[in-house]
Amino acid sequence: MNAGFIGLGIMGQPMARHLRRAGFPLTVYTRTAAKAEPLLAAGAQWAGAPAAVAAASDVIITMLPDTPDVETVLFGPQGVATGLRAGKIVIDMSTIAPAATVAFAQRLREQECEMLDAPVSGGESGAIAGTLTIMVGGDEQIFNKCLPLFQALGQNIVHLGTNGNGQRTKLVNQIICALNILAMSEGLHLAEILGLEREKVLPVVASGAAGSWMLQHLAPRILQNDFQPGFMIKLQQKDLRLAQEVIAQFGAEFPGTALTYALFTKAVEMGLGEQGTQGLINLFKKSHQL
Amino acid sequence: MNAGFIGLGIMGQPMARHLRRAGFPLTVYTRTAAKAEPLLAAGAQWAGAPAAVAAASDVIITMLPDTPDVETVLFGPQGVATGLRAGKIVIDMSTIAPAATVAFAQRLREQECEMLDAPVSGGESGAIAGTLTIMVGGDEQIFNKCLPLFQALGQNIVHLGTNGNGQRTKLVNQIICALNILAMSEGLHLAEILGLEREKVLPVVASGAAGSWMLQHLAPRILQNDFQPGFMIKLQQKDLRLAQEVIAQFGAEFPGTALTYALFTKAVEMGLGEQGTQGLINLFKKSHQL
Repeated sequence: MNAGFIGLGIMGQPMARHLRRAGFPLTVYTRTAAKAEPLLAAGAQWAGAPAAVAAASDVIITMLPDTPDVETVLFGPQGVATGLRAGKIVIDMSTIAPAATVAFAQRLREQECEMLDAPVSGGESGAIAGTLTIMVGGDEQIFNKCLPLFQALGQNIVHLGTNGNGQRTKLVNQIICALNILAMSEGLHLAEILGLEREKVLPVVASGAAGSWMLQHLAPRILQNDFQPGFMIKLQQKDLRLAQEVIAQFGAEFPGTALTYALFTKAVEMGLGEQGTQGLINLFKKSHQL
Repeated sequence: MNAGFIGLGIMGQPMARHLRRAGFPLTVYTRTAAKAEPLLAAGAQWAGAPAAVAAASDVIITMLPDTPDVETVLFGPQGVATGLRAGKIVIDMSTIAPAATVAFAQRLREQECEMLDAPVSGGESGAIAGTLTIMVGGDEQIFNKCLPLFQALGQNIVHLGTNGNGQRTKLVNQIICALNILAMSEGLHLAEILGLEREKVLPVVASGAAGSWMLQHLAPRILQNDFQPGFMIKLQQKDLRLAQEVIAQFGAEFPGTALTYALFTKAVEMGLGEQGTQGLINLFKKSHQL
């Protein structure tokens, strides 16, 4: 099965490397060509445009920042759609609007191609370790066909129903993540204000009912003043915007999601967008000093 | 070492049982005498008042709902203080205001007795399993002396510094817990609104970056419509009030903590106070139906 990979960012690069290591013939494209070099050295082929990736591959994977990026790569000039032939499969592993992924799948179906939405959780560390959680929406037979690819990328791979359900599940995941990040930020900030030794407090709270993936993986970075991105604040903010858009359709109240969206937006406005999500705590420190 | 235990509620009862099983001679008192019966059957002695517990014990443990309860049990008529002799140790494992515990320790020191604040995390299941996290403030020598008692009750037992630091750490723990509960509630509520199979979504999100103790332990109860208390909404609300009081002294902004305090208060007002904290999700369901 020839694989194509478009989008070699923080997540895409280690994911593509896992596909290559698993032995899949791999064709890649990314906006900044230099980012492909390690993969080309590992035997991947370079394609000059998304259309060329589509032409060379049975399954085309996209891993991009946002809905418009996926739309352009799939349906723009020299996009994937212009290089497809019937029977090919597109897997979008980006996090984008559920309604958009449903529409994209419909457009590809008109070309007799199938699409899966397969957003991931686990961040950069999960991508590097090949331990991503993968949430898949789309036809079950197509899902089963693509399973060997998914298994090269992640550990917890779940089919959640029809097109869009991968993205819908991801939004559920992201609003939980955002509130858990807020929990970590306020907790560590309170500990600091109260004059507690955060190095002692963290293992205590992380081991009990307050425990979370965020406390385990990101809180230690905060204590080391390490705000390098595993997952950027601006992308978390984007995911919360997607959630807000979906929620708005139902007229339901999600006050915690609304608050985290406001806070992540404020963090982006304050110039923290390129920090990892653990950088949200800097919002509190700066507020406190005002 | 003779142990005394005052307050045999959801938490206190299994904790006292562990002390008895570990072989400590045990004297107990609780407001509703019937709750002591299983412990008396296991060999504990009944005392007619907190003062009698103090007279019979080297170390007196209190496990009560709120600051005024602890004040009454320690310093009220027939309180612990009236039964103390020099050299005895009081360990308050309740969650109360840090400033109050500092004041109580000072008053007991005037009787040449030491006090530790040692609030716990882990809820009813942790109390039953003997796996509580115990956050201890007070003199380090006294902490070391009491370690065998703590080890009968929990697994992760940490000395965090001076009197009050146990309670301060617990407040950090509780604001994180509350936001993680809100995260779980909004996440599962969104999944339901979006028509996702929550039984499939839960293990997916719980295994990745959204993972938390709450998702692991309480979310399955929500899916089974089980709102029995491991830890009651009204007590979580009380802990958030304590946190709000401490935060107010610093004039700092903790918008997530303020939101969870408002939501848990609303839940209490709606009559959900005796449900377990997972019952917070019922607030959303009812709002949505309004």
